Amino acid sequence: MKSPLIRPSIEQLHPYVPGEQPRIRGLIKLNTNENPYGPSPKVLKAIRATADQRLRLYPNPTAQPLRERLAGFHKCSPDNIIVGNGSDELLAMATRAFVEPAQKKDPDSRATIQYFRPSYSLYPVLADLHGTRQRAVPLGSDFALPTVAELRRGGQWDFEAALTFITTPNAPSGRGYSPNELAALCAEQRGVVILDEAYVDFANENALKLALKFPHVLAARTFSKAYSLCFLRVGYFVGPADLIAALHKVRDSYNVNGIGQEAALATLNDLPYYRNNFKRVIDTRTRLSAELASLGFRVFPSQTNFILVRPPVLSAEEWLAKLRARKILVRWFKSPEVRDYLRISIGTEADRKLLIRAVRAILAAAH
Amino acid sequence: MKSPLIRPSIEQLHPYVPGEQPRIRGLIKLNTNENPYGPSPKVLKAIRATADQRLRLYPNPTAQPLRERLAGFHKCSPDNIIVGNGSDELLAMATRAFVEPAQKKDPDSRATIQYFRPSYSLYPVLADLHGTRQRAVPLGSDFALPTVAELRRGGQWDFEAALTFITTPNAPSGRGYSPNELAALCAEQRGVVILDEAYVDFANENALKLALKFPHVLAARTFSKAYSLCFLRVGYFVGPADLIAALHKVRDSYNVNGIGQEAALATLNDLPYYRNNFKRVIDTRTRLSAELASLGFRVFPSQTNFILVRPPVLSAEEWLAKLRARKILVRWFKSPEVRDYLRISIGTEADRKLLIRAVRAILAAAH
Repeated sequence: MKSPLIRPSIEQLHPYVPGEQPRIRGLIKLNTNENPYGPSPKVLKAIRATADQRLRLYPNPTAQPLRERLAGFHKCSPDNIIVGNGSDELLAMATRAFVEPAQKKDPDSRATIQYFRPSYSLYPVLADLHGTRQRAVPLGSDFALPTVAELRRGGQWDFEAALTFITTPNAPSGRGYSPNELAALCAEQRGVVILDEAYVDFANENALKLALKFPHVLAARTFSKAYSLCFLRVGYFVGPADLIAALHKVRDSYNVNGIGQEAALATLNDLPYYRNNFKRVIDTRTRLSAELASLGFRVFPSQTNFILVRPPVLSAEEWLAKLRARKILVRWFKSPEVRDYLRISIGTEADRKLLIRAVRAILAAAH
Repeated sequence: MKSPLIRPSIEQLHPYVPGEQPRIRGLIKLNTNENPYGPSPKVLKAIRATADQRLRLYPNPTAQPLRERLAGFHKCSPDNIIVGNGSDELLAMATRAFVEPAQKKDPDSRATIQYFRPSYSLYPVLADLHGTRQRAVPLGSDFALPTVAELRRGGQWDFEAALTFITTPNAPSGRGYSPNELAALCAEQRGVVILDEAYVDFANENALKLALKFPHVLAARTFSKAYSLCFLRVGYFVGPADLIAALHKVRDSYNVNGIGQEAALATLNDLPYYRNNFKRVIDTRTRLSAELASLGFRVFPSQTNFILVRPPVLSAEEWLAKLRARKILVRWFKSPEVRDYLRISIGTEADRKLLIRAVRAILAAAH
């Protein structure tokens, strides 16, 4: 039933569906790319220390101390940084700051949001929410980033699009893109480009320097995954000061909770702990990829904390259900490019062993 | 310098200016309506208990346990509740869910956001951000809520406006409105009405029942002020399930940090602690109002944790500066309706005594 009180465009909206967050005892949760290792003991201590009278006060509205610390980390100015309630909030804010809502039927790049498919499934939702036109252009074979020449030949890509999202390394494939190929594409793009580096700490390379070089490129980072702080919602953008200033204008006054700010600061003071965890995740990724390949899965090389695999014998949807029956949660997306695949987050070594045991059992039962 | 990358409407925007959050030793901070009393010891304990491995996981995306608890508290269903990253986030989301961006010059109620002036100074910023038309209609004398007949006679009010914000009790005046007068206005309004009850725990009456009675009325509540949790950003709306569902569609997937959710739950388990604080704040408000009146201030009756006063002898702006020089921070707004007034948050009894001492000294020096 339609309500005259609600915007028709919102009533028609298909919202983003986050991965399940069940709290089931003994569940192996490999569906939302969370880090299997918790925050460092120093971060936990810093969080406990915030639980005092200061909670009655508003947090720093611009996350100034955190932005200063991040500026030191990335060798830029605090004016090049904005912190968000997770990087999701900043991705949504970018649509409001840089893209006109579509007001007429004919194509207009000022009102266009563009992204590759498959990539982060939030982008089309953000475009729908903002009421803009969107272009979803296929990646190349094996999820390769198309070259500028290929994009020109393909004719679908809009080099004038107001906002282009590039997930790098790509999700859900895990494929990494080199700074050089990203730079070549950025150089041809006229609108704002967001390099969404949510998983970059698990990769060999990053493209942050492009956000400090080009006047129209922003890099998105998050404390959620690599830094084990999903619960506290802290992400940030790095980029040109004028674009960052525009984002500050559309920001809620106190958008980042104070404990999140403190936890992120404490995280930056204990980086060796996290770097050791990146190595553990990458080691497990290597082992799991080899084992699944030997069991007949097609495994795409990954630069992230998850792998995309094409399972044998049964359909991906059947694998999803059979693994879930064994208390192992992985992710399956219905969209046509990836419906034959499963996305599996990298867990602990113990998780890996239990997953492989479950896979062997499912295969044995299916044969 | 204009950037072709940024929407012109955003470049022109005057962002909301939050009250200062300086961390100056010995400062008496009476400028942002924070509770002078911190969270309960049980809440602090609950927060410390969250600092463990769960931080690596995403929080509950819909704040389900908190919504269930709030539903019990307000005697409604969890479907009548949405939780936000502070109520500010929800106010902004309401503009996106219920109001069309203005697309042409002629007036269109579907694209109109309406509010009284003076009231919460965020509303015009939200309207500008969303690119809608706005109507700011004056309150009556001494900040009274105009009757429907008065609004009809005045001719400025739009009974069809897509979204109407009413701060109740009013800020910055502190004046309370009765559920009956609010109901009379709601009954005539065709679009969505948000009763912004940020300060209602310091009032004699509340109008929450209207949000559970009318199909187009929402009540906004927050844990920030009355419940001393500004730092953690937790607010919520109560209202009709279809409007709440529309707001969920425009919500970021994980919009409320997990520690905020846990702290709010613990707060609802320790309400007597907070009710005692409300009483202390109200007692201090009564004493401070009487003392300032006896010193020549015009003091408006308040149903909130702040008072609006018209100071004697010097201008309000001069008082702001002289109090700041004595490390007492109060709030002054430039807008014409209130530029002759100061808004003073209610602090502790010690804060009250120091404020009165400072006022006496400033008065003595001015005479």
